[in-house]
Amino acid sequence: MAKVNVSLPQGTRDFGPDTVRKRNYILNTIKTVFELYGFQPLETPAMENMETLMGKYGEEGDRLIFKILNNGINDPKNIDKAKAAFENVLQGKNDKNLTERALRYDLTIPFARYVAMNHSQLTFPFKRYQVQPVWRADRPQKGRYREFYQCDADVVGSNSLLNEVELAIIYLTVFKKLNIDIELKINNRKILSALAELCGGKDKMTDITVAIDKLDKIGLEKVKEELVQRGLSEDQIKIIVEYLNIATYSAEKEEDLLNNIMLEKLKSFFSKNETGKQGIKEIEFITDQVNNFFDRIVDIDVTLARGLNYYTGTIFEVKANNVQMGSIGGGGRYDDLTGLFGVPNIPGVGISFGVDRIYDVMEELKLFPAEVHTGTRVLFFNLGENESKAAFNLVQQLRDKGIASELYHENSKMDKQFKYAEKKNIPYAVIIGEKELQEGTCNIKNLAESVQQTISQTALADFLSIKLSHK
Amino acid sequence: MAKVNVSLPQGTRDFGPDTVRKRNYILNTIKTVFELYGFQPLETPAMENMETLMGKYGEEGDRLIFKILNNGINDPKNIDKAKAAFENVLQGKNDKNLTERALRYDLTIPFARYVAMNHSQLTFPFKRYQVQPVWRADRPQKGRYREFYQCDADVVGSNSLLNEVELAIIYLTVFKKLNIDIELKINNRKILSALAELCGGKDKMTDITVAIDKLDKIGLEKVKEELVQRGLSEDQIKIIVEYLNIATYSAEKEEDLLNNIMLEKLKSFFSKNETGKQGIKEIEFITDQVNNFFDRIVDIDVTLARGLNYYTGTIFEVKANNVQMGSIGGGGRYDDLTGLFGVPNIPGVGISFGVDRIYDVMEELKLFPAEVHTGTRVLFFNLGENESKAAFNLVQQLRDKGIASELYHENSKMDKQFKYAEKKNIPYAVIIGEKELQEGTCNIKNLAESVQQTISQTALADFLSIKLSHK
Repeated sequence: MAKVNVSLPQGTRDFGPDTVRKRNYILNTIKTVFELYGFQPLETPAMENMETLMGKYGEEGDRLIFKILNNGINDPKNIDKAKAAFENVLQGKNDKNLTERALRYDLTIPFARYVAMNHSQLTFPFKRYQVQPVWRADRPQKGRYREFYQCDADVVGSNSLLNEVELAIIYLTVFKKLNIDIELKINNRKILSALAELCGGKDKMTDITVAIDKLDKIGLEKVKEELVQRGLSEDQIKIIVEYLNIATYSAEKEEDLLNNIMLEKLKSFFSKNETGKQGIKEIEFITDQVNNFFDRIVDIDVTLARGLNYYTGTIFEVKANNVQMGSIGGGGRYDDLTGLFGVPNIPGVGISFGVDRIYDVMEELKLFPAEVHTGTRVLFFNLGENESKAAFNLVQQLRDKGIASELYHENSKMDKQFKYAEKKNIPYAVIIGEKELQEGTCNIKNLAESVQQTISQTALADFLSIKLSHK
Repeated sequence: MAKVNVSLPQGTRDFGPDTVRKRNYILNTIKTVFELYGFQPLETPAMENMETLMGKYGEEGDRLIFKILNNGINDPKNIDKAKAAFENVLQGKNDKNLTERALRYDLTIPFARYVAMNHSQLTFPFKRYQVQPVWRADRPQKGRYREFYQCDADVVGSNSLLNEVELAIIYLTVFKKLNIDIELKINNRKILSALAELCGGKDKMTDITVAIDKLDKIGLEKVKEELVQRGLSEDQIKIIVEYLNIATYSAEKEEDLLNNIMLEKLKSFFSKNETGKQGIKEIEFITDQVNNFFDRIVDIDVTLARGLNYYTGTIFEVKANNVQMGSIGGGGRYDDLTGLFGVPNIPGVGISFGVDRIYDVMEELKLFPAEVHTGTRVLFFNLGENESKAAFNLVQQLRDKGIASELYHENSKMDKQFKYAEKKNIPYAVIIGEKELQEGTCNIKNLAESVQQTISQTALADFLSIKLSHK
């Protein structure tokens, strides 16, 4: 055949039938749990106005936003404006005459925009979930795409810690349903903030958290080096090391016991700091409540920082056990979702599922159940005009019973029809030839087991209903 | 509250919870039927390379494609290239140095691109369905958006008319399930082509079909005027009028009978034209087969043209009865899906559902079933710390039984909590106060009927399971 002269844009993917089904299995599992907890679906458009997105993700983020060229810029009427606009764009400024729209970069800012625009009609607390693709002009690499799905749930308009409890339980429930063994880590920004206060400088909070967040990967000595480099004094580092000793205390003994000991130690460490005490109290409330319902304990990790600066309270992170993979979920509490859009004082808390990574984990650990690979269950062979008319009647009977079925489209050689069934993983073939047509029977072949039997056509639909419901 | 300084791009929409649920009801109904017929899901990326899309939709289409500005055009390294590229773009040419990607304009071209890229791995006939948004820089107006969903099913790699039979049955099945009364029109391009041949000029086919397609709207006299304007001779118009007399013959008597009479008349009209006879034979085969399974007859309308030039055989169109609305579905057979991409000889046939219009029809005729408005079924009131702990245990029991439930997030005044339930259309409230806490009971209030009863907490989950399964 001729050369195929087409390709996909770098960093984007087609999802064929098998992949779509597996991805839907993950997404539907998550959505079902969101719904059980009273979250409601929201969908926003792929395009947002430039001013909605720009300046929300830092300088790096701004650069990675895909901008859409205005249509009609080559209209003679607009050419002077377009030229001036292009000069602006070359200088790194945005200009509405060249581009006024961009593709959404995440689901949080569009959600904030939606809440700001509709806050007078919404019922608060407003619990929404959103599962849609986002686009980033990042350099593509293994596991990093330019189009990928985000899957978020947020509650806004409530300060209650019950929300955190529920979101933690949602994480544990979803991953239990997906059969993924995870570690759910929890921390509280108030504790990190209190540590910075103890070190005498709130302004040092970012330096401290960035360094201690690496403890897992680089070890205590390297963390100390980094703290020195970041300008922390010997006295300050001494406080931080004491904190890290408490933080890592739990590594050796029975977890739930040690968490409590660690918390007691933290309480005395922060005995004179109200922010710290508040953070510990919040963690304690959440873990106590969650542990009422789950044998799997929430792991308190007071070195956990997570990058996003807008978090102000609880932070979550999920990692899969038994597999090398970054975090497959994360989230936290923020004080002010919509202030940027002119509507202040709407606090909230949210979590996110990393769908692509969850998919990879499930592939690697072979966790997709067999039922995910649905598709056609029964193929009727086509052995001629009259035979296929009888077959088509039966196909329709099966479809009426909810069994996905096909009649092979033409009277081809038997092995071609078998091959079609095999390639599409169809478990049953039904064969009606001249003899069966006369007798009102059909041959049913279980293709996996190569077992064949003949039954009357009138019994076929019920027979296959029973056979296939046992699968 | 402060002024909200944000908006949505023109022609785009947010879909709130209610709308998402109703749209999903439509989409899931369609997808379920597609699956029963052996169609498999495909998803392609929002962005395609420019060369994949450009030149496929005519000049008008090219102009309406949303192009994406390359990132990094203001990088000093690229500035000269970017400037030269911009000059090209101003002249209406595309230039890879300014824009190499664009948003998909429909689902057919991305599907063709996918089939061309993967044809050696695919099993033919390949039956795929695809439900994704597309983007067009059209002027927004009522019912016309810049982002909207398409919902397509195609079979490629098969010339068999069984595919047309199945697609017609899919239309009838889906709209029956959605409870929409429709008219499914069928025609065949071969008949239109034969009419042009009889008029002595294949090159006149577009002029003829564009004019006769308007018969419904403008009447016979105006169609004749248009044919004159389009340069057809008196003799040619005479033939066309004879054809239209046959085409409209069916309007007065019992439909199925008249269709047959009309077909007989058409057969003698085309008695010396092989293309025409073939077209009639195909229509006859399809309608005969479909009418075996449905009381609702397929309407043969030999004035139906549909705009797309790539159709070569059967064409379909669906209109809703009892409501003013354009077509809510359409499709047809084409000879060559992927030739444009270097893979010739892949014929196919496909149909499309107009999701936005189907939504509007269902809203106007109030066809959405009550179950679509799911969401939280039970709200537990929050009457204090201990009360809410007991309530939360019960909430979790209900969720384990698959009942979407919430505990109100804080101990607010009763009427605030009632208002929340009312606004979210929650049918049941469960109230546990101090007395109920001591007694191990709870008050269940049916909010629609304002009926209240007290039962033991241990009986609650089963009680509500039964109540809610009757809904």
